[in-house]
Amino acid sequence: MTHSEKPIQSRLLSAFSGSCQDYPPIWLMRQAGRYLPEYREVRAKAGSFLDLCYSPKYAAEVALQPIRRFDLDAAILFSDILVIPDGLGQMTRFDEGVGPVLLRLEGPDDFSLLSLTRMETHLVPVYQTVADLRATLPREVALIGFSGAPWTLATYMLEGKSSREFALAKYWAYVRQEDFAHLVDILVEAVVLHLSLQVKAGAQVLQIFDSWAGVLDDWGFRRWVEEPIARITARLKRDFPEVPILVFARGAGAQFDGLAGRIGADGLALDSMVPLAWARDVVQPQTLIQGNLDPAILRIGGPAMDRAVNDILTAWKGGRFIFNLGHGILPDTPPQHVAALVRLIRESGKATK
Amino acid sequence: MTHSEKPIQSRLLSAFSGSCQDYPPIWLMRQAGRYLPEYREVRAKAGSFLDLCYSPKYAAEVALQPIRRFDLDAAILFSDILVIPDGLGQMTRFDEGVGPVLLRLEGPDDFSLLSLTRMETHLVPVYQTVADLRATLPREVALIGFSGAPWTLATYMLEGKSSREFALAKYWAYVRQEDFAHLVDILVEAVVLHLSLQVKAGAQVLQIFDSWAGVLDDWGFRRWVEEPIARITARLKRDFPEVPILVFARGAGAQFDGLAGRIGADGLALDSMVPLAWARDVVQPQTLIQGNLDPAILRIGGPAMDRAVNDILTAWKGGRFIFNLGHGILPDTPPQHVAALVRLIRESGKATK
Repeated sequence: MTHSEKPIQSRLLSAFSGSCQDYPPIWLMRQAGRYLPEYREVRAKAGSFLDLCYSPKYAAEVALQPIRRFDLDAAILFSDILVIPDGLGQMTRFDEGVGPVLLRLEGPDDFSLLSLTRMETHLVPVYQTVADLRATLPREVALIGFSGAPWTLATYMLEGKSSREFALAKYWAYVRQEDFAHLVDILVEAVVLHLSLQVKAGAQVLQIFDSWAGVLDDWGFRRWVEEPIARITARLKRDFPEVPILVFARGAGAQFDGLAGRIGADGLALDSMVPLAWARDVVQPQTLIQGNLDPAILRIGGPAMDRAVNDILTAWKGGRFIFNLGHGILPDTPPQHVAALVRLIRESGKATK
Repeated sequence: MTHSEKPIQSRLLSAFSGSCQDYPPIWLMRQAGRYLPEYREVRAKAGSFLDLCYSPKYAAEVALQPIRRFDLDAAILFSDILVIPDGLGQMTRFDEGVGPVLLRLEGPDDFSLLSLTRMETHLVPVYQTVADLRATLPREVALIGFSGAPWTLATYMLEGKSSREFALAKYWAYVRQEDFAHLVDILVEAVVLHLSLQVKAGAQVLQIFDSWAGVLDDWGFRRWVEEPIARITARLKRDFPEVPILVFARGAGAQFDGLAGRIGADGLALDSMVPLAWARDVVQPQTLIQGNLDPAILRIGGPAMDRAVNDILTAWKGGRFIFNLGHGILPDTPPQHVAALVRLIRESGKATK
């Protein structure tokens, strides 16, 4: 190979190296989803929600929809964090208006039935979706792969559904620590495998979602959020040093201080509650930050959104920064609000020139 | 009056002056409640939940129950934050298994129907309960009065019930700011009146609950959590400079840094998520801190609780500190776990002597 091929670097990827940019790259958590009429059309054809996740044709299609509509800097694999338990052998379904329902793990005997081999086979369509997406996307649009984090996955696997109190998960996490550590070990392996296969299929950035990080106390956060994620990132960094890893530890609050270093992340997704000046002064010097418009304000749109977006840009655009929401898009968000948001971000570059 | 009467100072009150103590004072949010069989007995006799709140006889009785059972340093008025909307004229009820149901405020025309005069009359039994409690309690047990904060009260008044997304409340807070400010003004007056009447009846410490502080972004937190509470504490400090005010801004995360100064609080109740070392290094030098055992860990009890309690004591006992939970006691908590917790706290004093 004598000629050097210079890849078109996406704005999203260059944000990690801190390259100077006039406006931040933007993508939105759950940018593919129910708020788009074209998503609802595909969803109706695909069958169940998991059928959609496991259909490369349909899953790639819905991941591309927001890219066609809006000038976004990244596409994210269309999938769900619960494909891991489902792939490992724990039957999972999504009931309309209820959410996920899993056949609950009762204890260590059940843990040992979970199978990485089964997962790798079961999730082939997911990796196929990644490959199809990368082949279809323009090169300047980065492709993000993702996974749930062990703690959040474990809550669903032990509670069998979305929880408010996490009584069962906390029982295992605080009382049956040794057994729980065994489950977490399995999940660390599963997440590493799942993310590695996504990278091999074409994912250029990874995001790890620990949506329920904010329900653990200090000890629990260190033991069940930080330790497992640190193990995952160490393994991924060894094999894929060039792939940036974002972590969304929702509700981590003051734990965001120093977190990127402790867990080996290249960037932290911040929820909407994180104070802007504090994030700028404390977190942004440590790592790239991503966030944090309140999805409720995106749904509201108009001057309220202009004000909130401007606050975030003013506070954060001096450092490493990817614009996003603080949580996923709400299903009843008007798509034109998303268009207006992307325009605001793009125009913020012109305004300061 | 020529003789000087030296009052017996409660341990809880002396914690605010930072008096050196071998172990922290302890009380628990929702220490009177469903987890106690004697509470359930009274509740069955009293009628509805609000009937219980409005019966001085029964409300004082249930507030005294945990004091009889456990060696706690404070009793808290038995009441509910929603007696304010109910007192102001907004019909409120509590449905078993559902929670609060309020006749929803639709807009400014409804706001102007709310009446402070009505509230003052309607809540006479609440202030009577405070007076009866103060007359009955041993002098070393402090009596805590409380109120909801304007933002949290407004969410219930506008949503009509507990919410997960706060779409309506956020609509008013971010879009109809002027009208929302009018509602908040009314609530500031109502909270000041409600707390003042509790102090006049015998409350020695006040706690303001902003349970939904953690769902607002940075701007919203400053405008609708901090500003109204600062106005309330300024008014109370003018009239009752000797009464310490605790504020529970649940989920405030990094906002806890500097918060006490910004809102004029004498102490901050911290939720279970707040990292212990961070609270010690950043928040405790600024103000007294109260908290923050995870109620789920109190329910679990045993060695898991011993570990968590020890972590908190080790981190925080060097400074101004009241032991408490990070949120209210869960209804299915075994009462013997509370007894064990109080014993642990008391014994921590002996251990270090």
